[in-house]
Amino acid sequence: MNQLTIIKVGGKIVENPETLKTLLQDFASIAGYKLLVHGGGRLATQIAEQLGIESRMVEGRRITDEQTLKVVTMVYAGLVNKNIVAQLQTLGVDAVGLTGADMDLIISVKRPVKGIDYGFVGDVTNVNAPALKKLLQQNFVPVLAPITHDGMGLLLNTNADTIAGEVAKALAFDFNVRLVYCFEKRGVLRDEQDEESVILSMNREEFEQYKEEGIVQGGMIPKLENAFKAISAGVKEVIITRAPDIRTGGGTFIIDEKGGK
Amino acid sequence: MNQLTIIKVGGKIVENPETLKTLLQDFASIAGYKLLVHGGGRLATQIAEQLGIESRMVEGRRITDEQTLKVVTMVYAGLVNKNIVAQLQTLGVDAVGLTGADMDLIISVKRPVKGIDYGFVGDVTNVNAPALKKLLQQNFVPVLAPITHDGMGLLLNTNADTIAGEVAKALAFDFNVRLVYCFEKRGVLRDEQDEESVILSMNREEFEQYKEEGIVQGGMIPKLENAFKAISAGVKEVIITRAPDIRTGGGTFIIDEKGGK
Repeated sequence: MNQLTIIKVGGKIVENPETLKTLLQDFASIAGYKLLVHGGGRLATQIAEQLGIESRMVEGRRITDEQTLKVVTMVYAGLVNKNIVAQLQTLGVDAVGLTGADMDLIISVKRPVKGIDYGFVGDVTNVNAPALKKLLQQNFVPVLAPITHDGMGLLLNTNADTIAGEVAKALAFDFNVRLVYCFEKRGVLRDEQDEESVILSMNREEFEQYKEEGIVQGGMIPKLENAFKAISAGVKEVIITRAPDIRTGGGTFIIDEKGGK
Repeated sequence: MNQLTIIKVGGKIVENPETLKTLLQDFASIAGYKLLVHGGGRLATQIAEQLGIESRMVEGRRITDEQTLKVVTMVYAGLVNKNIVAQLQTLGVDAVGLTGADMDLIISVKRPVKGIDYGFVGDVTNVNAPALKKLLQQNFVPVLAPITHDGMGLLLNTNADTIAGEVAKALAFDFNVRLVYCFEKRGVLRDEQDEESVILSMNREEFEQYKEEGIVQGGMIPKLENAFKAISAGVKEVIITRAPDIRTGGGTFIIDEKGGK
């Protein structure tokens, strides 16, 4: 099977033109099939503020009301996505920027209200692997914005980590998939203040342990949940690392064993 | 050769959810290969206003400064494009929303300053016909937002009528192209107040005459210029009409003869 590298790049890297540029250069240098999933980060919050729309967050997740949905669609699928595509084209990458609505790539269901009403947020239910495979085989490089649709005309704001994980899982039948979650740290850190304290590998038991100890917390928990789901579903490699390390390796490797070390 | 219908839908139809819905239903019912090009109209102006960005217009054309470029990229490539795509998917149309940067589809050059500095506005220099042909032959339906790129990382605001005309010309080698400019009137009117006064056909000489007489003016002039360029370059049919008339016919047919009637 062919190699496919899926890079998920986080909001903090995306919102800084310098770190984004470095990330895209690294991405361009990856050989073989590749696909990029991006977040949007605080850009959406900034523009919502400018428009007088209040951004409500609950447990690190944005509450997406109708106005916020418009803003994230504009910012993620428009501003961020198209600027990434235009930059990749200058680097010789034949990028094509897409949401889950395009080519019916990613179907999601509006998250049911259980205590918290997240609003127009989608939980992924289907990835159109044949369409993505077709694009890849024609040497196009999909750049996915974190917007999906419900197939009934509704766009839905969707967590970019989840999109990366679900796309990796769906393509694991056709490719040897390497899934890389890029963020601003060198990996999952034992001590958040110490960049040298990267946890080099993590299995599920260790993950549970780290959660209990509070070493892993906040937005890292759903990210790791996505990582473990992907590795369990046949994705060959899942790594959490800092952007410029894509080629040189490093970061936290996710290990698919149910037991201990 | 296969038939290809290219519909350009104007801002006034797009910005009204009811007229847009009707247009998309008509579009979905068109048999054979098809492609949609959309404007964005006053939505961008509204959002720019909300963001405190002043919209400057000269002779019906927007001056695109850096902030305005961000707004049109958000609104056209994000909000408008993805909502159209999501709606088309519910109508059984496998739409894929793209700008000129995606797949390097449309290259433009930043308009040179001659008296007026239009800012980040692009004049089309190349259409990637092979990529569009590939998409069409795989039964995807491209939905083009009026944003192009210069191939050097810069996105450029581009007139949607021009995009429709240039795409039609580029695909005229591979398809029998019918290009339909849809706007809110039944066609080019002799008397703007009288919807029954549609000019049923127009050749270039008549166009010049109508311009002199002031029957054709404002934004209709560049639209017709694009229409005549397309028909001269081998596009089979060019029609200017009201949206719901796509199927039933009608409107103003552009005639490719240099001489009189």
